[in-house]
Order: sequence, then C-alpha cells, then structure tokens
Amino acid sequence: MPMELHPFDQAIALQADGPDRFSGHCGRSYWNMLGPFGGISAATALQAVLQHPALLGEPVSLTVNYASALVEGPFTIIARPVRTNRSTQHWMLELQQQGAGGALETNLSATALTARRRPTWGASDVPFPGVPASDSLETVRHVFPLEWFHRYQLASVCGGIPDAWDGTENGAGPDTASLTRVWMRDMPLRVLDFCSLTALADVFFPRVFLRRATRVPSGTVSMTVYFHAGGELLRQCGSGFVLGQARGQVYRNGFFDQTAQLWSAAGEPLATSTQVVYYKE
Amino acid sequence: MPMELHPFDQAIALQADGPDRFSGHCGRSYWNMLGPFGGISAATALQAVLQHPALLGEPVSLTVNYASALVEGPFTIIARPVRTNRSTQHWMLELQQQGAGGALETNLSATALTARRRPTWGASDVPFPGVPASDSLETVRHVFPLEWFHRYQLASVCGGIPDAWDGTENGAGPDTASLTRVWMRDMPLRVLDFCSLTALADVFFPRVFLRRATRVPSGTVSMTVYFHAGGELLRQCGSGFVLGQARGQVYRNGFFDQTAQLWSAAGEPLATSTQVVYYKE
Repeated sequence: MPMELHPFDQAIALQADGPDRFSGHCGRSYWNMLGPFGGISAATALQAVLQHPALLGEPVSLTVNYASALVEGPFTIIARPVRTNRSTQHWMLELQQQGAGGALETNLSATALTARRRPTWGASDVPFPGVPASDSLETVRHVFPLEWFHRYQLASVCGGIPDAWDGTENGAGPDTASLTRVWMRDMPLRVLDFCSLTALADVFFPRVFLRRATRVPSGTVSMTVYFHAGGELLRQCGSGFVLGQARGQVYRNGFFDQTAQLWSAAGEPLATSTQVVYYKE
Repeated sequence: MPMELHPFDQAIALQADGPDRFSGHCGRSYWNMLGPFGGISAATALQAVLQHPALLGEPVSLTVNYASALVEGPFTIIARPVRTNRSTQHWMLELQQQGAGGALETNLSATALTARRRPTWGASDVPFPGVPASDSLETVRHVFPLEWFHRYQLASVCGGIPDAWDGTENGAGPDTASLTRVWMRDMPLRVLDFCSLTALADVFFPRVFLRRATRVPSGTVSMTVYFHAGGELLRQCGSGFVLGQARGQVYRNGFFDQTAQLWSAAGEPLATSTQVVYYKE
C-alpha cells in the first residue's frame, strides 16, 4: 500500500511538462488569508529547480517575488537555467496561472543560484543566541484561524504574537522592538530539506504586527533566502526543531523589510533571509 | 556646447532598442578586476526599468544576479514588466552579451518591484549610528589600483581595508569583526538617485577580507537592495555623503553573505541591502 505523501510534499509536487516546464496544483493545505502561505510558493519554485534535469549543485540563493495571490487550481512553472558555469548555475523562474480573462498571468517570479560547493574556511558573525531548549517551552496555540498554521509546530522564545491588539507602539527600543525568536518545525514531522527550510524562512509574522500591536493588512512582496547548509547537514537535522530569529529594519510609506536567521537545534547556521513586506497604513 | 555626461550617467546610458529591449555599452570607467564594478551593473539594470515606457511608480526592491563578468563592448538588456497591479509592478531582466562562440549569453539576471507609494506610519529598527561627521575624517587613499575606486570618495569611520594582509583572523567578536562604517559619495560629485544609491550598496569590500586580513579571491554572486526613500528625498540629499554600514553573517563552503544599511547625512534611512559572495578558499 503506498504511503500517503506528507502535505508539504503534496503541496510542492511538480510534474515535468516539457523542456523547462512543470505543472502543479495549488491546494488548501497551506492556505493563508487570500491565497497559499508565501513560504510554500517559494518552496515550490525551488522544487522546480531541484527537479530540473540540468541542475548543477545545491541551492545557494533564492529570490521570490509575489506578484499576485495564487488561486486554488493548476499552475505552470517555467524554470530556465540561464547560465551554467563550471561550478555555478543561474536560474530564472515564473509561476503562471490562468487569469480571469483566460490568459496566462505571472503570479510569482524568481531567480536562484545553485552551486557545487567545496569545503573552505568558515565562520559566523551571527552567533546562535542563548535560548531555552525547545522542549522546555510550550508550543504556540494558533490564534488565527489559518490553515497553514496547522502545518507548523512553533515554540516561542520571545517576540510572539501580541497578547492584545491595542495599538500600543512597542517601546522596547530598536534592538528588540521587532525581534522574534521561535523554534519551528513541520507538522506532521518531516526531515528537513532545502524546500522546507525555504518555507520556514517565511514563517515569521510581519514585524509591523509586533511593532504596533495592530493587525495592519500586509503581505510579503519579495523574499530572498541564502542557504548556508548543504543537503547532508539538513538531512542530519532530521525532523528536529529549527531556531528562527527575525527583526525589522525600516518601515516607510507602505513597505518595510525584515531580516531572519535560521539555525539547527545544534546551533549550526542553516540559512539567512530577508524580505520586504507591503503594509496598508 | 553640450555638457559632458558624468561618468556614472555615461556608464548606465541605455538606448531603447525595441519593445522591452535596451542597448548599452560596457566601458572601463568603473572597471574592477575582471569586469565592471558590480554596483554599476546593478544600477544599469535598474536604469532599464526606470527608462521603460510602462514604468509604474518608484523602485521598492531589486535583486541582481551576477552570472558572468561583463566584457568591454555592447550589451542588450531585456526588461519585461511581468505583472502590473493597481499600485505595484513586477519586473524580470536579463543582460546579454555576445559570447566567445558568437551566441548571446546572459551575464546578469535581475528582478525588481516598483510601486506607487503612499504616506503611512513609519519607523526604523536600524537607528543611525553615532559616527563622526564626514568632514572630520580623512578620505580613504585607494590602495588597490582599480579604476572604479576613483569614482567614489570614501571617508572611513571603522572597519576599513586591513592595514596588513597578514592573515590574522579578526578576533573582535561577532558584533564588530566584520563591521564597516563608511561615508561615501560619487566622484565627481553627482546628485543622488535610485541608480547611484544602488551602486553605493555594493561599494563595501568583501567582509571576508576584513575577517581574515587575506585577499581571498571573491566576488558578489547575488545582491538585493530594498529602497526606503523616494526620489524626492534622494534629490534632497544632493551630492552629500551617504553613510554605509555593512556586516557579515555566515561564511561557509565557498559563499558568505553580508547585510548593509545606507543613511543620508541627516540620518534618514535610504536603503537596506544584502548580498551573497563567492570566496575561493
């Protein structure tokens, strides 16, 4: 009897559909407010690269631009290796769906870099923060009725969703006013890989919520992920918790940006990320 | 008599060459080691967006991927608005040159987001650092014989190019080991705009130099810039110095990333940036 696919693997599943073309289906299992959780769309874009027969190496960077909310139903990804060097490869991607008028529309664009990496000198200037172990913390209750929240188990260290949406501006000072640290992992449990790590980089709620204790309408418009771990290290993380840290930078005229870092439970840096987010007022 | 163009404007000059197509010329005025300074190529990509007749709004984000060094001579940029919404617009770009075999090759890929922005609540969690004024500092002598250095005036606050390339690993601790603060502006003087700000985001030398006091062969492979100022604020900055701050994050297996923030002399946040850089060993 075939084992049922994990919801994550179902969501990012792609079928080769011609040279540089893949087809997939956008379902409800990672549904956010108006479309799927952005992290799952980013993971799906990366999956097209990883499944492409011309792939060289492993992911180094990925930038995903959210042009319009995906709708439930089929989609096509065009994934082109635009340049292949000796040890690096550059990718351009578009995810398209049929629009209201019947024509194909681009709902997501992306670029990626993959590379064959070699051992070198290494270091980190973003040291693993001293935080309580995940099993000493309570897992977060899901306060928003959003389907994708149920696909993650979160244990908040600091900077959780505000207790009261009373519009009080956070006066903790720039170092911590928008700082979140949270343990997170897939639910049901799933062994970590490049795609699930990509999605985890988008789990942090918009910093503007934390900063203003107000649920300002907002949504990510572009996210970049840099991968600092190889596939073997990710596999070794198994289905353990990943520590995520996010912090806002500048909020101005309808857009703000936030940076993020992700570490394994053993303190190994896995990825860094940044995103720019639209907010309404 | 026509005034001679500023070298920056010469370098990023583009001619419309059909729908979504522009042609330009890569010259030596911003030459780096093996090709032009990456900042000038990023600025040129953005220039194609700004010059496109379908442009909506002003830049919010730009990601540029360096696939291969540009060569001296003509190039073509294909700049497509892949999605235009009510107040945002998504762009995909490729810069191509004729390769050794005669065929067109992609040397740079990019995505951008432009938007019509409106006044909203604003704040910054990256406060302007307390630094000496630019006129109280000596400007940096150019230790590398690279043409593009002459196009910038720099006044170093901290984290300058190491005095001795003796391979001593910087033991200052993660907060400052890879931290640079530097005043910078175009030379000859030029009024700040989106393109020159983009180039400034790439002026910081690779953090691995500072961290290891070793000139490890290295080069940016992808850079993302988020714009936090509008065109009017940039014009108001005139040709004054911009304060730049850069810091490394994770160095591992041939790639590291660094974050950057740029402020006006009056302390207004102008842009934030991040990049991932190849290094050899």
